[in-house]
Amino acid sequence: MNTYAVIMAGGSGTRFWPVSRSATPKQLVRIVGDATMIQATVARLQPLIPAERVLIITTAALAAETRRQLPMLKPEHVIAEPVGRDTAACVALAALVVTRMDPQAVMIMLPADQVITPADAFQAALAVGAEQARQGGIVTFGIQPRFAATGYGYIKLARKLADQNGISVNQAERFVEKPDAATATSYVAEGSYRWNAGIFAWRCDVVLGELERHCQWLTDALAPVGAAWGTPRFAQVLDDVYQPLQKVSIDYALMEKAKDIRVVTGAFTWDDVGSWDSLYDHLPLDQAGNALRGTVVAEGCRHSLLVAESGQTVTAVGLEGITVVATRDAVLVMPKGQGQEVKKIVDRLKAEGRGNLL
Amino acid sequence: MNTYAVIMAGGSGTRFWPVSRSATPKQLVRIVGDATMIQATVARLQPLIPAERVLIITTAALAAETRRQLPMLKPEHVIAEPVGRDTAACVALAALVVTRMDPQAVMIMLPADQVITPADAFQAALAVGAEQARQGGIVTFGIQPRFAATGYGYIKLARKLADQNGISVNQAERFVEKPDAATATSYVAEGSYRWNAGIFAWRCDVVLGELERHCQWLTDALAPVGAAWGTPRFAQVLDDVYQPLQKVSIDYALMEKAKDIRVVTGAFTWDDVGSWDSLYDHLPLDQAGNALRGTVVAEGCRHSLLVAESGQTVTAVGLEGITVVATRDAVLVMPKGQGQEVKKIVDRLKAEGRGNLL
Repeated sequence: MNTYAVIMAGGSGTRFWPVSRSATPKQLVRIVGDATMIQATVARLQPLIPAERVLIITTAALAAETRRQLPMLKPEHVIAEPVGRDTAACVALAALVVTRMDPQAVMIMLPADQVITPADAFQAALAVGAEQARQGGIVTFGIQPRFAATGYGYIKLARKLADQNGISVNQAERFVEKPDAATATSYVAEGSYRWNAGIFAWRCDVVLGELERHCQWLTDALAPVGAAWGTPRFAQVLDDVYQPLQKVSIDYALMEKAKDIRVVTGAFTWDDVGSWDSLYDHLPLDQAGNALRGTVVAEGCRHSLLVAESGQTVTAVGLEGITVVATRDAVLVMPKGQGQEVKKIVDRLKAEGRGNLL
Repeated sequence: MNTYAVIMAGGSGTRFWPVSRSATPKQLVRIVGDATMIQATVARLQPLIPAERVLIITTAALAAETRRQLPMLKPEHVIAEPVGRDTAACVALAALVVTRMDPQAVMIMLPADQVITPADAFQAALAVGAEQARQGGIVTFGIQPRFAATGYGYIKLARKLADQNGISVNQAERFVEKPDAATATSYVAEGSYRWNAGIFAWRCDVVLGELERHCQWLTDALAPVGAAWGTPRFAQVLDDVYQPLQKVSIDYALMEKAKDIRVVTGAFTWDDVGSWDSLYDHLPLDQAGNALRGTVVAEGCRHSLLVAESGQTVTAVGLEGITVVATRDAVLVMPKGQGQEVKKIVDRLKAEGRGNLL
């Protein structure tokens, strides 16, 4: 009964433009550290989950680059969804494939683009979660909120089931969507709410059973995929069954309905790094509060985020609270705190037919 | 008795970094308009001074690129000074060469990197200046001050000698160096001061005679250069006589001593565009007061100068009074008004061994 990891890596966000592009979205570029987000995600699982038990679910457009970045993975373990059909289909697909490798396997599902440190505390929490999953639980990972975030979903904890080495396990009471600021503040004050990290652990047979119970049309539709795994027909079968699927999230299909959901709260710090502004929090600051990445020459700047990629050099004089991100062919400059506005630029470039920059 | 133009184009300023580089300083790049500064300077003389009567004095390092940008010039008319020996040597060299082409020639000397419009008003002023030079005058061109500039030298006018079609000719009373702000303000209020444009007109025999009178060691030293013009020995002779020369400016060697100096004030606008800040004044502004050059996408920006060169795209959100200049390999960002600080960046890059960016 081995533990597998399945990394969900089909995202196509634009919030890290101009470093992220459609062919290399956030998970496939270096945002923090020297590795790409997905390389860091795989490395962070070692040695708990060796590379031969790591699978990636991504899109057809990203599969080749994903394999290139992860040469230690078996190429067939990078699975391309023919089309995006939301997370429930992704979970079912992963469970059907992994169950062919080991019917008793525990499967940890996690996003490819989060910043989590330190790796050993993360692995310790995963080990606790995997043990809970082995016992038959549907396990999700909660993050002690550091501030009243309105950009994350929350999990309300119920009674504590276990506590070992600072890693607690609770029954989940309920899941809540992204709250407004006042609600988020009350959650943080209340103490029994956790950020929903979007990381899960379950036995394949357990999650498939739960999905069959709550969403049988999905497991019925996908059943041929499991049968085709390891055969030359796999890609064609996957395409045939995926195209007509309805989109349903795993939260809706399963988490909001399953009974025995357990929440593991670990001792690691977690951030999904949703914008250039949040990157600022992950970089060391110089004495004037500047976060510099890449080749940067700053004179008299304060509280600025200066990022040079792809051989670019960023130079700046006298900036106060400005974000500069420069790549080989595109540069973005904006005041700090306006990270969400990148979308406007991307939309303009799209409208103006500048797809070569996206 | 033809009129020749000699363009002084050996400058190596860094104020337009990162667009200007040591191999392509300001005069050899596009700062305003679609032509490089030196191309615009040659074009602005047409048809008054056809290309076959235009000479360039530059440095050995820049001669090849200068010839490449000006294919309409005779290659031998782009003369490379072996080393910089200030403007008096440059004037004497030019006069010695042009006098070999036409002993009675009038020679207009002008910098390669000024913005002057419109061309017809400029040529009209040059024609008046050339006529004054033909009569034996040492002619300099004055600009009606538009503000109390402290970055330019001034010429105090004496009595008016002529006035035709809005172009006046005055005797010069004296030259003054860059004044402080209060002095500059008094000059502008007084009305009889002109900015010194650094543009001259004289007959070759007149200027050589004046130099011989006030600075004979220079004309003596350079005499072999005139004799060698048109022979294979020219470059070697030039090198031999130039290396040991003392540096003296034409202002010191001649303008402050000559008696019959006449000032032509034309009806053209003139700017030596000394920094990115001054470029802002030469570009059309959008409704929010932004000056954009190259491929720029700006959202919610005001009073900013956004420049994209070499295939770069600059994007910006919510900037207020910021200058962004982006090239293929280097980006500069600073508040408007700090254009003089570019030097700090260049000095840092030099100190850090990043000569590849300079």
